[in-house]
Amino acid sequence: MKLIITKTYEEMSGIAVNILMGLMYQNKRVNLSITAGSTPKEIYRQMIAQVKGKDYFDNVHYYNFDEIPFKGLDREGVTISNLRNDYLTPAGIKEENIHKLTMENYKEFDEMLEKDGGLDAILMGMGADGHFCGNLPKLTKFGNKTYMVPIAEDLKELMVGEVGDIKYVPDSFVTMGPASVFAVKKLILAVNGKHKASIVKKALEGEVTEDVPSSLLRLHPDITIILDEDAASELELV
Amino acid sequence: MKLIITKTYEEMSGIAVNILMGLMYQNKRVNLSITAGSTPKEIYRQMIAQVKGKDYFDNVHYYNFDEIPFKGLDREGVTISNLRNDYLTPAGIKEENIHKLTMENYKEFDEMLEKDGGLDAILMGMGADGHFCGNLPKLTKFGNKTYMVPIAEDLKELMVGEVGDIKYVPDSFVTMGPASVFAVKKLILAVNGKHKASIVKKALEGEVTEDVPSSLLRLHPDITIILDEDAASELELV
Amino acid sequence: MKLIITKTYEEMSGIAVNILMGLMYQNKRVNLSITAGSTPKEIYRQMIAQVKGKDYFDNVHYYNFDEIPFKGLDREGVTISNLRNDYLTPAGIKEENIHKLTMENYKEFDEMLEKDGGLDAILMGMGADGHFCGNLPKLTKFGNKTYMVPIAEDLKELMVGEVGDIKYVPDSFVTMGPASVFAVKKLILAVNGKHKASIVKKALEGEVTEDVPSSLLRLHPDITIILDEDAASELELV
Amino acid sequence: MKLIITKTYEEMSGIAVNILMGLMYQNKRVNLSITAGSTPKEIYRQMIAQVKGKDYFDNVHYYNFDEIPFKGLDREGVTISNLRNDYLTPAGIKEENIHKLTMENYKEFDEMLEKDGGLDAILMGMGADGHFCGNLPKLTKFGNKTYMVPIAEDLKELMVGEVGDIKYVPDSFVTMGPASVFAVKKLILAVNGKHKASIVKKALEGEVTEDVPSSLLRLHPDITIILDEDAASELELV
Repeated sequence: MKLIITKTYEEMSGIAVNILMGLMYQNKRVNLSITAGSTPKEIYRQMIAQVKGKDYFDNVHYYNFDEIPFKGLDREGVTISNLRNDYLTPAGIKEENIHKLTMENYKEFDEMLEKDGGLDAILMGMGADGHFCGNLPKLTKFGNKTYMVPIAEDLKELMVGEVGDIKYVPDSFVTMGPASVFAVKKLILAVNGKHKASIVKKALEGEVTEDVPSSLLRLHPDITIILDEDAASELELV
Repeated sequence: MKLIITKTYEEMSGIAVNILMGLMYQNKRVNLSITAGSTPKEIYRQMIAQVKGKDYFDNVHYYNFDEIPFKGLDREGVTISNLRNDYLTPAGIKEENIHKLTMENYKEFDEMLEKDGGLDAILMGMGADGHFCGNLPKLTKFGNKTYMVPIAEDLKELMVGEVGDIKYVPDSFVTMGPASVFAVKKLILAVNGKHKASIVKKALEGEVTEDVPSSLLRLHPDITIILDEDAASELELV
Repeated sequence: MKLIITKTYEEMSGIAVNILMGLMYQNKRVNLSITAGSTPKEIYRQMIAQVKGKDYFDNVHYYNFDEIPFKGLDREGVTISNLRNDYLTPAGIKEENIHKLTMENYKEFDEMLEKDGGLDAILMGMGADGHFCGNLPKLTKFGNKTYMVPIAEDLKELMVGEVGDIKYVPDSFVTMGPASVFAVKKLILAVNGKHKASIVKKALEGEVTEDVPSSLLRLHPDITIILDEDAASELELV
Repeated sequence: MKLIITKTYEEMSGIAVNILMGLMYQNKRVNLSITAGSTPKEIYRQMIAQVKGKDYFDNVHYYNFDEIPFKGLDREGVTISNLRNDYLTPAGIKEENIHKLTMENYKEFDEMLEKDGGLDAILMGMGADGHFCGNLPKLTKFGNKTYMVPIAEDLKELMVGEVGDIKYVPDSFVTMGPASVFAVKKLILAVNGKHKASIVKKALEGEVTEDVPSSLLRLHPDITIILDEDAASELELV
């Protein structure tokens, strides 16, 4: 575990950019799985400027690591839609370099990744409840590969923000499980903000437990964890 | 996880030899941690024949991953003594290439490994209770790096076999923890025998839980698990 | 450069087997290019015993690195035919795991290798004239990727041994060039016999020059050179 | 060979920064050899901003790859002095992380690198005469490891610019040779400017020959070559 604590969100973002982009200049296929959400907005802003219109990145392929479908709508899911908006479309990534995890293909997703040569890196955030990817407390088994997660009725209200209206909240979603994430060569975990300080402490200094799914991540042999000072403010090791 | 099931113990041993020795022919320092015990006897028999007297292996360094001291005796511990008997001495390994984990240095052991460039591979067995290295059920925390394990009174009787007499059973021993083992680049787990079939099934197909410490190992991004048919006989995936 | 000098041909062969097979037990596609000829006979004898009938090697793919066609005959070339006889057929390798370099596809061969993820290792011998693969003295440019080599009239007599009759000697053959070989992750060079001692000395201790194509090989960042004592007998560094 | 052609010098520099810094965020020792000269000025300007005062880079070590001593002066040589001015001092690199190649230690330098775990990356420029590091046309043997180069009388005038006065021009200098550079895991070659276009064409599309030492570099299995449009303007492959 390489732990980096930065003064600012911008510095945190620049480090993630260096790590991701440093992998991309290779004469071989490079497979990346990257997160949607608010944390990586600045990361993608910097990357778009460097990636757009550069055909020397034709070797780089992108995968989403979870997906929430819109119930009853015939359209792409929440995650890939957000990734398109925030990065893939403005960066001009070709459709053939985009590989979607969906409700339909999740059972074959791990095998597909393996055939494609495996993921070289995954960029993740951490939820305030300790989740990573779609691995939620109480619903996560460390042994899971890519799997489908049923959404309990009392969780549905919370997911309105993702899909826009209660009527679009699906009955389940899909995610790479802990076992799938551990097969990735390099893990990058970026967390910022005071509201994450408490869960960061649990994940990095507490017990490794399925109650705090992110607590497992520090065991991966090649993980870089980038925190801003706010997110790191409750750590004792600092 | 690469799972290999062999017809015989000899075949299982030959595969472990190929993997370990394949790493050793390099123009750089290679760090190995290898297990004592009965499982690797044949592995060491084959390796000794290839290693003894060969100075092109001067780049290979050896580390024990746990240690049980003899209480009240001024001598080396159980693990390193067995490793010397079974491999290090007959293979003619130089003392400067042997690095001991002891009751005295365990707090600095992970840092020492890191300074030495990290372990390239670790060869482990699995106990019938699901332990790996010295990580016992109920006494193991997945988040542990190298640590000291107190030996409860009711466990002492069981350890007479290791030290020869109840009076030599110590109050505690040391072991690389799960977090230390996960930092190793390549894990090799070799298990044979019908009496291991039940725990192998739990470790590979059951939940990842501290109650079965070996269940964690299958999450490592580069682990090869070698079972003979007896040890694999209860697996469903076969 | 890792240099290993062995007492016997059998020991030399066993080392090559360890290195090659050590790479094969992985949970990902492994691409190997292996040599035909007399040097590897014992290597293949040992490997066949370990590979035949083992479906845990379905991830291993094989490529020939040169090819001599039979002029006027509608059949596979010399190299792949020999590889089939000596290893691929007795080892029971599936046709879908065999990838042929031919007179027809050599221009796309480097790109094909790249798409397949690159070669993980290449096992080569050294000719008494210093050639490796089909890179002959005077006909080799270090900058060459996979290319076609015209066979001069005075060379044709020498190639009767390969194809059986002067009428089958072709006008040209194909080979991976030095630039293609240098893109391979791990190089293994095995040489035995007194008649190779003089060229081994030139290749390892003389100038790096296109007149001795093998002299380039020692520059590769991950090459293991295995010599028996006879082949090493003129080296000064020993 | 990964070839990247950029519109500007700033873009070229940003790419080199991404590659170098992407390697630096690791939980292990990272060894870098970096070039002095005018090409990397912007690279170092960007790196200093990210490196200064950051103790999470204590794992990064720096090596110069050539050295020109000042004749008759008791002071550090030209290369390390320039590296201190341009990067090491403003970036606040600790003295214990700086490892000097000198006239005194060059014979042991390759062995020292090997003991330190090898170089993870080397950042180089290319001279208008095709030299890389101190490997000059006519004076370079591809087989050379780190070596001393005598300076002929007619070359001494040219070196006044380096040392300030003809009286300080030494009789020889030292440099990592081609064989030493090829042992590095990752090569980064950055070249900019119209005046380099002709030699870039020779080095990338001409013969691999000791007359153009940089022509060898494209054979390395992991080299990224970054050119601005001016430097790439004579290439046919573009």
